[in-house]
Amino acid sequence: MNDTINCQLNHRTIRVFKDQLLSAEIVTTLVNVARHTATSHFLQAFSIISVTDPNLKAAIRNISKQAYVGTNGHLFIFIADQYRDAIIGQEMGHPENILGDADRMIAGFSDAILAVQNTVNAAESMGLGAVILGSILNDAQQLIDLLHLPKLTFPVLGLEIGYPAQQPQLKPRLPEQFVHFENSYQLPTPIVSQLSHYDKVVHDYYDMRETNQRVDTFTNQIYKSLTDVPEKRNQLLHTLHQQGFLVADQN
Amino acid sequence: MNDTINCQLNHRTIRVFKDQLLSAEIVTTLVNVARHTATSHFLQAFSIISVTDPNLKAAIRNISKQAYVGTNGHLFIFIADQYRDAIIGQEMGHPENILGDADRMIAGFSDAILAVQNTVNAAESMGLGAVILGSILNDAQQLIDLLHLPKLTFPVLGLEIGYPAQQPQLKPRLPEQFVHFENSYQLPTPIVSQLSHYDKVVHDYYDMRETNQRVDTFTNQIYKSLTDVPEKRNQLLHTLHQQGFLVADQN
Repeated sequence: MNDTINCQLNHRTIRVFKDQLLSAEIVTTLVNVARHTATSHFLQAFSIISVTDPNLKAAIRNISKQAYVGTNGHLFIFIADQYRDAIIGQEMGHPENILGDADRMIAGFSDAILAVQNTVNAAESMGLGAVILGSILNDAQQLIDLLHLPKLTFPVLGLEIGYPAQQPQLKPRLPEQFVHFENSYQLPTPIVSQLSHYDKVVHDYYDMRETNQRVDTFTNQIYKSLTDVPEKRNQLLHTLHQQGFLVADQN
Repeated sequence: MNDTINCQLNHRTIRVFKDQLLSAEIVTTLVNVARHTATSHFLQAFSIISVTDPNLKAAIRNISKQAYVGTNGHLFIFIADQYRDAIIGQEMGHPENILGDADRMIAGFSDAILAVQNTVNAAESMGLGAVILGSILNDAQQLIDLLHLPKLTFPVLGLEIGYPAQQPQLKPRLPEQFVHFENSYQLPTPIVSQLSHYDKVVHDYYDMRETNQRVDTFTNQIYKSLTDVPEKRNQLLHTLHQQGFLVADQN
């Protein structure tokens, strides 16, 4: 097993960072890696915003409701970006476009998310730690306003990277048979009984870990999540529409 | 620069593979890496289908309209999967759910796409080559039928991995100032004139590369893409609705 894969199989989310900023050189390296990620049709339909302003960090921490957001790590926000193409089109005398349709929206999200994971792998290969922040979408409209995001862009994921000040235990993943199928979708059912061993593994993980111990299982987490909508996250489709997405499809 | 980052900065898409199958051990390693990818709220909302059936490969090649799909590489299809959670809920007596709303759809897409890039990095670290296939969505409904994908799942990206039988040149990426901003979205405009150097670099890349030479620039590619909708790709939103997504939002 090589270093890259060893690192990937030992991935832990790091949420506590040392009081040591990333150098400008490291930030540039991380952005270079992101820029070299595979991209749909070579359109490179994403952008990255580095958040360095303390007030802005505080506002994003308030949206995320996670105390560690914008503290000692470097905070990137990855943006699905079809606006750049719209502007290029306008300047070239071609203002009509289908950049807001589901196809192009998905392409922008895809480009941005592939770049996030590539950046995570680069960071971890350097011994840095990372936390991917889906919580920036707890109030997508506010984040859009804070970052002055134009139409045809959308914030997809945050990514905070820094020097690890914690060493969490490895979180046990779903066994392969529940995730990987051959030639057709074949979920083993009834599934809850077949997940009993995994539930015990997850239970022991939560019980034994050094911080934030709790009593929980995987299926119990799923159960709780089924109708659990954080405030404003049920407005995401509305916000996508506001940004010009999913309104141009010809259905 | 370490091996991981060196590999990432030299990423090339590989579309031609040697006539040598991946071993079962390598496929397992790749799936293990995918399983250990960071995941939103630990819900692991994705699945992977390995396509091994020659007839199915041919059908997917026909959808993708790419001659190299399903040839000598191993073909994975990554699926955004909220169905597994719905079934767990049903079995636990909790059939109501918001698994189809925009938030959970995005979470499923995000989990799947992060796992795709993690798998690409693992493959490339082993000297394998990879091509990510957005083209599987040229006829999403047909692919859903072929793979027997239930509601609350959606095919996101294909990924073909094999032993490289080509060594393409490195494709030049957009310069950092067009992609990376600080504290707010700040696209340099007018952009087309500022992209003239990059256009020349891209032009020279297409002109000089060893195969598929053509005359093109970046802005010209954008221009052509603005209203270019491949047949059936404008039905993606409809197909998402058919699969139960984006219909449960409270707007």
